[in-house]
Amino acid sequence: MRLSEVGEFGLIKNMRSICPIPGERILLGIGDDAALVQPRPEYSLLLTTDALTEGIHYDLRYVPIDALGWKSLAVALSDVAAMGGFPVCCLVTIGLPSQWSVEDVRSLYNGITRCAIRYKCPVVGGDTVKTRSGSFINVSVLGEVRSGKEKRRSGAKAGDLLCVTGELGGARTGLEVLQSENIPTSSYPHSIARFLEPRPRLEEAGELIREMETTSMIDISDGLASEVRHLCEESSLGCLVLEENIPVSKEARLWAQKKGELPVQFAMKSGEEYELLFTVDPNILDRIANGSSSTKFAMFSVIGEMKSREEGIKIRKGVEIHPLTIAGWDHFHGFGGGG
Amino acid sequence: MRLSEVGEFGLIKNMRSICPIPGERILLGIGDDAALVQPRPEYSLLLTTDALTEGIHYDLRYVPIDALGWKSLAVALSDVAAMGGFPVCCLVTIGLPSQWSVEDVRSLYNGITRCAIRYKCPVVGGDTVKTRSGSFINVSVLGEVRSGKEKRRSGAKAGDLLCVTGELGGARTGLEVLQSENIPTSSYPHSIARFLEPRPRLEEAGELIREMETTSMIDISDGLASEVRHLCEESSLGCLVLEENIPVSKEARLWAQKKGELPVQFAMKSGEEYELLFTVDPNILDRIANGSSSTKFAMFSVIGEMKSREEGIKIRKGVEIHPLTIAGWDHFHGFGGGG
Repeated sequence: MRLSEVGEFGLIKNMRSICPIPGERILLGIGDDAALVQPRPEYSLLLTTDALTEGIHYDLRYVPIDALGWKSLAVALSDVAAMGGFPVCCLVTIGLPSQWSVEDVRSLYNGITRCAIRYKCPVVGGDTVKTRSGSFINVSVLGEVRSGKEKRRSGAKAGDLLCVTGELGGARTGLEVLQSENIPTSSYPHSIARFLEPRPRLEEAGELIREMETTSMIDISDGLASEVRHLCEESSLGCLVLEENIPVSKEARLWAQKKGELPVQFAMKSGEEYELLFTVDPNILDRIANGSSSTKFAMFSVIGEMKSREEGIKIRKGVEIHPLTIAGWDHFHGFGGGG
Repeated sequence: MRLSEVGEFGLIKNMRSICPIPGERILLGIGDDAALVQPRPEYSLLLTTDALTEGIHYDLRYVPIDALGWKSLAVALSDVAAMGGFPVCCLVTIGLPSQWSVEDVRSLYNGITRCAIRYKCPVVGGDTVKTRSGSFINVSVLGEVRSGKEKRRSGAKAGDLLCVTGELGGARTGLEVLQSENIPTSSYPHSIARFLEPRPRLEEAGELIREMETTSMIDISDGLASEVRHLCEESSLGCLVLEENIPVSKEARLWAQKKGELPVQFAMKSGEEYELLFTVDPNILDRIANGSSSTKFAMFSVIGEMKSREEGIKIRKGVEIHPLTIAGWDHFHGFGGGG
């Protein structure tokens, strides 16, 4: 059924039926002028928003609409994780050209709702608008964080260890395999899944903060190299990254080698990973290594150390030390050019 | 300067410099993974989002970019007003094609910021994304409302009087005059201003709720006729609208007559008015009329009475009573068709 046959209010009814609203803390969801929520008083609130636009962030020739729905919420949840918070609820705006069918919109909302249920972040409202061409999705998330416990980008101290959760390179591998018409996607299942339906590290962030009192945190949306620079800049510090410590996924390693690229360099430029980059006091890490805590070491890798600003942002490869120059992905470098 | 020359982070710095962040309640604004706010505990939170897309909601041939910025926030604030709340802060997502310059983006943010300052709703974050063609703006507002005092669409009771703030028709007049190449805009100054830079009725809503204990409220974004239907539907009621009581602005009356349309019908179909439609117990209105309250009567008009659902949604024109059928503007009626 075409959107023109149901109208905006028919569409809103459709969405209401797809997006379940749990009662707890959500007093009023989709359908009024605004949603109404009642978070706990001892918490501060987090607000974040992320937009994905067709032809820039996704290509519907190889991205299933349902996965796009998941991802549009997941990327905003990743920001809440990177602040050390937990989601309360979200608002979803979709901009659609006339080619879309009601079934497409339902698929999109199914994907959003799967993610909303998985991470306990109900959709409480939004807007549905027409575009002349090309679709977009914008998700705003309201989260909460225990007052004073938020993890800012600016909290790192010189001497802190720089760490990253998980393994990198999978998202870029997934994207490039999907873009290559002659590579079977079944050869890179983890990478495809990672690119299409990234997992915001909400539980992991909670555990890291509880166990390790992390001093700063940021999520990897633009690529490791780029995020290291942000963390350093916001904390007014330098750092030394140890190249051999950067965790690269098995599939990313294989794919980079197939392309004739160095796996670590490939992984450092991989955007949309949504792992967490964070800093921690080395004494706390020692204590954990000595068994006085339950944090699983497999969960993250120590990839460097924060230095004074004057020491610059550098990377050690074997015995050589170079400035860290590999740029991550900047949405706006494409402006005026190829994209 | 083109966006490609400054990059995303240059653009964010630009925005930070334009959007002032008042310290009160806003612990962290633009620049981290999420904004951090601390509203008062006795308040519930409102969340609302509104998107405007180029070619559908605005045409840059006659809408100044600065005014577009104002409007994009104002329309979201109108939803907060319609819930009986006050804004805390907002998030702004802009999607831009490569033709835009950095100066254009600054104009957009200047307009947003003027509105943000006027209505005390600081921009605390957002997203900036590229589009393949056509721009869009999405604004999400966090508001607060005294717990239990929110004004829902569903709160009207049979016998309540139906009221509307201000005068209608100006927004549509403004749009049509701007679209007509041969009409001097100086002939319709109030209508042009109303269309380009609508005023969310935040103070008025606060006063109405305080003085009159309004039972339900909705803002007029799609046109009076359409919003009357929403209010009736959500409250499971019917109503009788009195045509001669509908307030039509002087300029709208002139313009409608010039076009050979009936002014009241023209005004009822006028979208983007952002006046408030609300219901109130007639006894309270009597008390106010008898001078026991300070609410200014000039601020609103009584345009009808809520009836049981079975009595339907009707309009009285002189001695005749008809079903109220004049449709407001539905964004999605354009889908698949001309728009």
